[in-house]
Amino acid sequence: MSEQPPTDLVTMDKIVSLCRRRGFVFPSSEIYGGLGSTFDYGHYGVLAKNNIRERWLRAMVQERDDIVALDSAIILHPRVWEASGHVEGFTDPLVDCRTCKLRFRADKLDDAQCGRKPSKRPGETPDCDLTEARQFNLMFETTVGAVQEAGSRAFLRPETAQGIFVNFKNVLQLARRKPPFGIAQTGKSFRNEITPGNFLFRVREFEQMEMEFFVPPAEAEEWYRYWVDERLGWYLAHGLRRSRLRIREHDAEERSHYSQGTSDIEYLYPIGWSELEGVANRGDYDLNRHTEFSTTKLEFVGQDGERYTPFVIEPAVSIERILVAMLVDAYDEEVVAERERTVLRLHPQIAPIKAAILPLIGKSEDMVAKARALYEELRQRHFVEYDDGGAIGRRYRRQDEIGTPFAFTIDDQTLEDDTITIRERDSLAQERLPIGEASAYLDDALARPWATPKGD
Amino acid sequence: MSEQPPTDLVTMDKIVSLCRRRGFVFPSSEIYGGLGSTFDYGHYGVLAKNNIRERWLRAMVQERDDIVALDSAIILHPRVWEASGHVEGFTDPLVDCRTCKLRFRADKLDDAQCGRKPSKRPGETPDCDLTEARQFNLMFETTVGAVQEAGSRAFLRPETAQGIFVNFKNVLQLARRKPPFGIAQTGKSFRNEITPGNFLFRVREFEQMEMEFFVPPAEAEEWYRYWVDERLGWYLAHGLRRSRLRIREHDAEERSHYSQGTSDIEYLYPIGWSELEGVANRGDYDLNRHTEFSTTKLEFVGQDGERYTPFVIEPAVSIERILVAMLVDAYDEEVVAERERTVLRLHPQIAPIKAAILPLIGKSEDMVAKARALYEELRQRHFVEYDDGGAIGRRYRRQDEIGTPFAFTIDDQTLEDDTITIRERDSLAQERLPIGEASAYLDDALARPWATPKGD
Repeated sequence: MSEQPPTDLVTMDKIVSLCRRRGFVFPSSEIYGGLGSTFDYGHYGVLAKNNIRERWLRAMVQERDDIVALDSAIILHPRVWEASGHVEGFTDPLVDCRTCKLRFRADKLDDAQCGRKPSKRPGETPDCDLTEARQFNLMFETTVGAVQEAGSRAFLRPETAQGIFVNFKNVLQLARRKPPFGIAQTGKSFRNEITPGNFLFRVREFEQMEMEFFVPPAEAEEWYRYWVDERLGWYLAHGLRRSRLRIREHDAEERSHYSQGTSDIEYLYPIGWSELEGVANRGDYDLNRHTEFSTTKLEFVGQDGERYTPFVIEPAVSIERILVAMLVDAYDEEVVAERERTVLRLHPQIAPIKAAILPLIGKSEDMVAKARALYEELRQRHFVEYDDGGAIGRRYRRQDEIGTPFAFTIDDQTLEDDTITIRERDSLAQERLPIGEASAYLDDALARPWATPKGD
Repeated sequence: MSEQPPTDLVTMDKIVSLCRRRGFVFPSSEIYGGLGSTFDYGHYGVLAKNNIRERWLRAMVQERDDIVALDSAIILHPRVWEASGHVEGFTDPLVDCRTCKLRFRADKLDDAQCGRKPSKRPGETPDCDLTEARQFNLMFETTVGAVQEAGSRAFLRPETAQGIFVNFKNVLQLARRKPPFGIAQTGKSFRNEITPGNFLFRVREFEQMEMEFFVPPAEAEEWYRYWVDERLGWYLAHGLRRSRLRIREHDAEERSHYSQGTSDIEYLYPIGWSELEGVANRGDYDLNRHTEFSTTKLEFVGQDGERYTPFVIEPAVSIERILVAMLVDAYDEEVVAERERTVLRLHPQIAPIKAAILPLIGKSEDMVAKARALYEELRQRHFVEYDDGGAIGRRYRRQDEIGTPFAFTIDDQTLEDDTITIRERDSLAQERLPIGEASAYLDDALARPWATPKGD
């Protein structure tokens, strides 16, 4: 967060407000007063997240030969987290206030508020009674199963990566792989953050998308550069502006203990430049640790007797941070024909709804019948919406605001010649097309590389 | 489990073995000795589960007007579970053995084994020292966040349904809905089962697919019957044999306290007839309880002043139970041309891989080049596999075993006239087709209703 965002960037408040108003994201457990920094996703939020996940899996697995999918459990054997170093080292320093009972990050007291006098920092008021700083583990703990002993203590995974490392041997053997190859996983992870916040940016449960790419050690540096480029390219192909993305390489002091090199792909969020995705060269740290703790040798043995512990390159991101970046990047307000509109210029593959099917006059039975028939055809292939309620301009604006790239309007002329109007969200260009070609038009439009209307 | 399965039914051991051998499902944390009844999904398992989820969401949301999607948090406000009745009543009776430290379901001692003498039941050996039965809550507990007090105790959700009920008002308002309408959700739930087992059938973390359908009370019975029929139809459309499915209606004593009617859609698993999916009429129990505990009125108010608390019809299932039913139903062994083959006759939409692209001779550069080009075309649209290793018969059998419905073979004739052989998994019929038509052939085959080769 080293630089201030430009003044034309949308504020986080506007994004939060749109998300709530249009049913993308709600504060969780709202009728019970909410649960800090926890969110539930409404219809459009679910569809957008599904699209992000599907596009990631497509790029990582479907369109490649060298990466397979995995879905490991959330509650793994507790020894996994000893081996990974999380039991010992996945901690933040915190202090408790004996007076107000709140907890604070000891290294972030300057950003915190006293529980009794929010205008003051903890420690600044006479009755603050802060403990010494101690290490607080960020893993959620729970107790599993049928045995009473201490051995039944378990953790919710704080990252999906370890589930991949402990399955390395299974994939090597059963999927008949040899390095370089990767294992990709999406799924919930949990971190008991002391100071969550900034909307979806730092939350306690989040959906990770991680891929561990196993390579011969001598090729690690090359593959590390490859994956930084590849992931940056993915964001550009999905519509994020180049000017709001940058690569920031960690210096040696900043890197995690296991890392031989880490680059953040940063996005210019409303809170400033911040990590969108991290790409790390984890070396052979993880496989060596699990070899040591499990006494199962995790290495590659070639048919010619070649034998080594692969290095691991890891691109890791959460769907939540991608969603926020895409919403921020897409958000626009403009005046068209003297009317304001809010429009989400989302990449068509990310947009929750691909097309709206609208009878110009909602009370015309003939228009409704044709619109319903088209809707029922298109929904076999895509998430589309039918809407016959209210003035057409208002219906267009509702679709603009959720980022629907196309609207198909059935009007008087449709009843004469079976053509419809296609309205394009960004350019507002309108063209006519035979109704029978609408489905192929939509398929083609979604398959094409997207020409962003947002500039660089 | 009132009847024994027929002798031609595959055993669970064969399914477990196939799943492990072909990388559908592994025991979790295997290098650490495993974690009882927890599983990790390999490549084909992930793809099959994704297909099941996608088909469910398609039937529930994409192809309907009246149901929207939701994705609520796993860790909700703890009051949610007081209101739902789970804190008080989501329990099993258990006894501890002070000698062997194991826990047992008090109502299932007959099926349990003594920790010291597995041939005996608990209580049957002299040194067994069983406690009185007490109620054990099946919710996993954890501690959240920044406050030290007891209020930070929280639970991993044991069902996704409550996350839907607490968002009822949001959806009513923001998605502009009126009953009858539904909210659908998929996601992980967690139950600290005392006696998990039977492979994926009873596991501690599982992925639910639940839909809560809100209706005027007078229409509840009718909608309840509708959803039983609808869900049964979904299984038939996805290839399960009618003879292995049955509807079993709970009698009043068996029903949950909130239920005004429950039907199980049962499948004939290797362990006998058991619940695949439950469809329940939950009445107005849940919305009333959350109204009471949250003091937010959860009701429908119409524009004409009409006002009522909707009844809820709930079809609820886990992806794991569907996956096992589909694997069991699909599993077949047969002798073809004097050779045995194992084949998964999965519905093409459920099969993890849609087509295999195989150069007949893996060392023929020309065949490889044409096969790779076709593969790279098809993977834009589907999960497909390229394989040039080993004898063609062996490659066919590997694909049969993972349920790939089509194999496209590039052979000598392809080099002459650009036609390929299409081999169909179930009938083993082969036909030739121009290579340029393979993509459309596959699209069409996947879009068609499937004519099951399995009989009724």
